[in-house]
Amino acid sequence: MNEFDFIRQLREQTSARKTSTRIVCGIGDDAAVFRQSPDRDLLISSDLLVESVDFHGEATPPRLLGHKALAVSLSDIAAMGGRPLWSMVSIGLPQSAWASGFKEEFFAGYLALADRFGVSLTGGDLSQSQHVVIDSIVIGEVDKGRAVLRSTAQSGDQIFVTGSLGGAAAGLKLIELGARVRSPTVREGDDSQQAADGRPQEPARDASQASEPNDTADDEAIQQLLLRQLSPQPRVGWGIVLGEEQLATSMIDISDGLSSDLHHLCDESGVGAVIEAASLPLDENVVHLCGRRALDPLALALHGGEDFELLFTVSPKNLSRLPKRVDGVSISHIGEITEPSRGVRVREKSHEWDLPARGFEHFSG
Amino acid sequence: MNEFDFIRQLREQTSARKTSTRIVCGIGDDAAVFRQSPDRDLLISSDLLVESVDFHGEATPPRLLGHKALAVSLSDIAAMGGRPLWSMVSIGLPQSAWASGFKEEFFAGYLALADRFGVSLTGGDLSQSQHVVIDSIVIGEVDKGRAVLRSTAQSGDQIFVTGSLGGAAAGLKLIELGARVRSPTVREGDDSQQAADGRPQEPARDASQASEPNDTADDEAIQQLLLRQLSPQPRVGWGIVLGEEQLATSMIDISDGLSSDLHHLCDESGVGAVIEAASLPLDENVVHLCGRRALDPLALALHGGEDFELLFTVSPKNLSRLPKRVDGVSISHIGEITEPSRGVRVREKSHEWDLPARGFEHFSG
Repeated sequence: MNEFDFIRQLREQTSARKTSTRIVCGIGDDAAVFRQSPDRDLLISSDLLVESVDFHGEATPPRLLGHKALAVSLSDIAAMGGRPLWSMVSIGLPQSAWASGFKEEFFAGYLALADRFGVSLTGGDLSQSQHVVIDSIVIGEVDKGRAVLRSTAQSGDQIFVTGSLGGAAAGLKLIELGARVRSPTVREGDDSQQAADGRPQEPARDASQASEPNDTADDEAIQQLLLRQLSPQPRVGWGIVLGEEQLATSMIDISDGLSSDLHHLCDESGVGAVIEAASLPLDENVVHLCGRRALDPLALALHGGEDFELLFTVSPKNLSRLPKRVDGVSISHIGEITEPSRGVRVREKSHEWDLPARGFEHFSG
Repeated sequence: MNEFDFIRQLREQTSARKTSTRIVCGIGDDAAVFRQSPDRDLLISSDLLVESVDFHGEATPPRLLGHKALAVSLSDIAAMGGRPLWSMVSIGLPQSAWASGFKEEFFAGYLALADRFGVSLTGGDLSQSQHVVIDSIVIGEVDKGRAVLRSTAQSGDQIFVTGSLGGAAAGLKLIELGARVRSPTVREGDDSQQAADGRPQEPARDASQASEPNDTADDEAIQQLLLRQLSPQPRVGWGIVLGEEQLATSMIDISDGLSSDLHHLCDESGVGAVIEAASLPLDENVVHLCGRRALDPLALALHGGEDFELLFTVSPKNLSRLPKRVDGVSISHIGEITEPSRGVRVREKSHEWDLPARGFEHFSG
């Protein structure tokens, strides 16, 4: 049994017991949805980050980890079309991390991102642990009935994705090859500002030392990809627009990888999909490096996780209402929802093939 | 800096930033409190349980761990005078636990307790980890403005505690001495039903093997104390009554230990307290065993953690309205809130001394 089967089984067990009519959506979406008042629904997401499993302790400056811990849960709220309000964080730390400056740096990164979106840290818990472990909780809300679920895509809806794909997974590969981020500076704001961040502050060892001769453009691309992995930008603005304007018929954030997350959305909605390979917004730094670093931009875009972009569907009648950019982040039209019998497919020129769910799983059997 | 100093510092940082008027109570109480509608406030608690730190993996049957994970967060909601509604659980598991029956047993225990209080599991997260780690989240509510805080005790208020004290800490000591629970059966209901549970199902090794000759009454007392540690009973009914009837002026649950938790309450309220040692409801099984097992009932009652009883204060004018029992659980009148200059004291006959906060801390420096 893999983790998704187990979660499905748990959902069946709990929905058989469900007694509260105030639960709009329980297990199985990016966040739980509750009716809190006659005009508003509440969203709560919880994300567990475990050292050496969900992040590389040694390669992740604590300040960026604090940023990422909050970012992944903000992304969940965005994927529901919600507005984040408050957060909580429960953290387990080894004694060594407690005694060092870890916690101060972690919360500096966390609170800087919270401030950016007007989110208030309101509680949590603290324990000792053998490795760093973080549970990140964000509470948000939507107008009543406006939460955008995974389960409501319909055949004929058009598929979109924010930003670009594959960069975070490329960053992870570079970390595994020994690359390290030069600066603990958190990348602020939208994609267009990427070049303004990650400025060198101290000498770094990076993947280039272990491979071909260095060059400045490669170095910059590597740093950008590391930040894409270590300092993801949740698409909070897009989430709010898509929810409040009722533009998305369904939505999920790309945490496991486009292929897996599209499968989740299609399974929940009982639909199929076809993706145009040529329309996928490949990360430009991956494209820049691909000839020299054994990175396959298309494979990374299809199966690489942790981009924390939003994957959403739009009814044809609403296409003209879609903004071009929100907070400087553009979107790409990558495919179409089909009848379920069609399955989940990718088309590239005259070829078409089944897209397997090859994204990240913690447990596969 | 110990963990309470750090939490205090984080609270100062966050409250300086606080912009939302909908946060009724943030960092520093048993749960965060939010205004959700014109007539209701929302409560959210989060508790992190780490193997080998917050529980002994080998001594804790997964079913009891599932029970305890939910119980500790239900206790937090009770300590706010709230009614629990929904829950979430994020869990990190080693591959070995995933492949064994751990998760099924864990959720059987968790969901049985959830059913008992009409709480619905609505989401969470799953990750791999080196040791078992659980973040337990419970969402509850109270009528607007009725959340019972730690910070609102006043001089002259009378101090009460539900149930009995010291049993959970004695259970932990017995586990450390090698005692093991015989049956994974979760102790259901109130104290008066204790004797109906923990029935032998298989041979067990227990502390008695390592010490004096066995006897049936000792054996039964040991099993009760193990269950007191492994299968705590959250005082949900008392929490609801004290909150809805506006009987408690302040409240906290006893997780770190009476001495530490009373200090937390007094610090937050800016008051002192005096406790009558003779009035403390010592756990009867600890008293039964104390002569033979080096357990000190008074020290365990004062400083032992994890009883998950409610410690609360009542204005003199409301004493006559206090029920004697709720759900079969009685309360004890153990002392009085005083002026802050008096400090936190214990009185035993003609002696009186300062009560140090000697309960549990994860990080002391």
